[in-house]
Amino acid sequence: MKTVVIAGLGLIGGSMAKAFKAHASWRVLGWNRTRAVAEQALAEGAIDGIADESDIAACDLLIPVLYPRSTIAFLRSSIPLMKQDAVIVDLVGVKTAVIDAVEPLALEYGLRYTGGHPMAGLAKGGFQRSFADLYKGANMILVPTAATAEGDLEELGALFQSLGFGRIKVCDKKTHDRMIAHTSQLAHVVSNAYVKSPVSAHYVGYTGGSYKDMTRIACLNEMIWKELFLYNREALLLETDALIANITEVRDALQDRDEQRLEELLRQGRLCKEEIDRLNSEEPSE
Amino acid sequence: MKTVVIAGLGLIGGSMAKAFKAHASWRVLGWNRTRAVAEQALAEGAIDGIADESDIAACDLLIPVLYPRSTIAFLRSSIPLMKQDAVIVDLVGVKTAVIDAVEPLALEYGLRYTGGHPMAGLAKGGFQRSFADLYKGANMILVPTAATAEGDLEELGALFQSLGFGRIKVCDKKTHDRMIAHTSQLAHVVSNAYVKSPVSAHYVGYTGGSYKDMTRIACLNEMIWKELFLYNREALLLETDALIANITEVRDALQDRDEQRLEELLRQGRLCKEEIDRLNSEEPSE
Repeated sequence: MKTVVIAGLGLIGGSMAKAFKAHASWRVLGWNRTRAVAEQALAEGAIDGIADESDIAACDLLIPVLYPRSTIAFLRSSIPLMKQDAVIVDLVGVKTAVIDAVEPLALEYGLRYTGGHPMAGLAKGGFQRSFADLYKGANMILVPTAATAEGDLEELGALFQSLGFGRIKVCDKKTHDRMIAHTSQLAHVVSNAYVKSPVSAHYVGYTGGSYKDMTRIACLNEMIWKELFLYNREALLLETDALIANITEVRDALQDRDEQRLEELLRQGRLCKEEIDRLNSEEPSE
Repeated sequence: MKTVVIAGLGLIGGSMAKAFKAHASWRVLGWNRTRAVAEQALAEGAIDGIADESDIAACDLLIPVLYPRSTIAFLRSSIPLMKQDAVIVDLVGVKTAVIDAVEPLALEYGLRYTGGHPMAGLAKGGFQRSFADLYKGANMILVPTAATAEGDLEELGALFQSLGFGRIKVCDKKTHDRMIAHTSQLAHVVSNAYVKSPVSAHYVGYTGGSYKDMTRIACLNEMIWKELFLYNREALLLETDALIANITEVRDALQDRDEQRLEELLRQGRLCKEEIDRLNSEEPSE
């Protein structure tokens, strides 16, 4: 039986551990900075044991799910301990910064290393909210590195699908970070900014759902997201600047009472959305 | 049996007609600028007949569901025809502009007039998408005017609840417009602007739901929304400017690599959201 070590037992890592226990035949070891959480995971049967350095050295698969900066630090200290040909998949939500730091070390020590990003989560994190089916039907992004061996993507894709993931998306690190800046990071910036309006607290009775959709992810963990944003600074700045410019155009047309311009700007957005829906109409719904 | 005339048989008016037919004992007449739609509604049994001027003159309840500007024009020409004590409820998504135009006429001709705003819809409109249960559990906002008679709010509240609406929210026109600028209009501005990013079309595989939430309502009808925005210009400018400022603060902290500031800004948004959720935790979920 192979052994996986999951380092970091919050919502994402805890759910990953529970998915391994529920859906795969692996020995599942967990590690957590606050040891009480690992003990709770063990007591609940979410893991088979609490990992120490010798377990990291001996494991077949290491999945660090720590904060972005901590993940890099953890891998810097763990990689020299690990056995040759062991596999590492980090789950940090930005890939270029992590891969650039980890890839040379993985190559140096003869480890197989691929970046991962599970596209699932909840509005709030924590082990207490984790569950085995968090990833059911979700997208899993895999980002190959120079330390990804032949066959690794197929093997990892099959493994993650066995845990419940739907689509496995393979892309390079730059594409990942550019796309995630738009689909996830910008959404978090907007949602978190949206609720700062003084009238926001009184929304009840005044929404058919739009407000709830806009603000669902406002309650982000600033300690994680500040790191993710800073690690993807250029791509996210492109996105914030484009959105600010596009909202400002509408705002200026409104300020100027320029009805024709306002109509044209809104029409452009509608046509973009129609084109997006058309291009993706053959895709399975998500 | 009382008679209701519904003028404008798109998604909102068509669904209102079908809800009356399904859930209430009223004679339901419909009117539509493009007569073919009214004929289709009649053929499908969504209405009992197509209204002409004499029907408007004789009806007990008139519900215009036209574009904002057309609703005002329609009521200006209809009110002088109507019988005394007939009731009017317009369903335009802004209330101050419509009430300011219609209220004096309703008073002059002895009609009872209350503003309404059903908080329901779909990403796309049209009679072909209308259905009787569009309003099931939705919020219905009622805005009393100087032409609202004693007992009208209770009577209309009961009527709309019989059609399927959940909460009936009563507020004044200024409060309505200020709140709607935030909960609905700003959401439409953002969603419509969000999809203008050149990478947006490639979102598939890169989202766990945030992107879909942000862009669900991007495909708005610019002919309706430009009117709604212009009729609520001051309140919407307050909202767009606040959101642009709040996004820009995050953007600037990111540009400056000011981690502490970034953390503080994101923390403020999180605390706003937590407070909003706390304040509304005793409210029924929507």
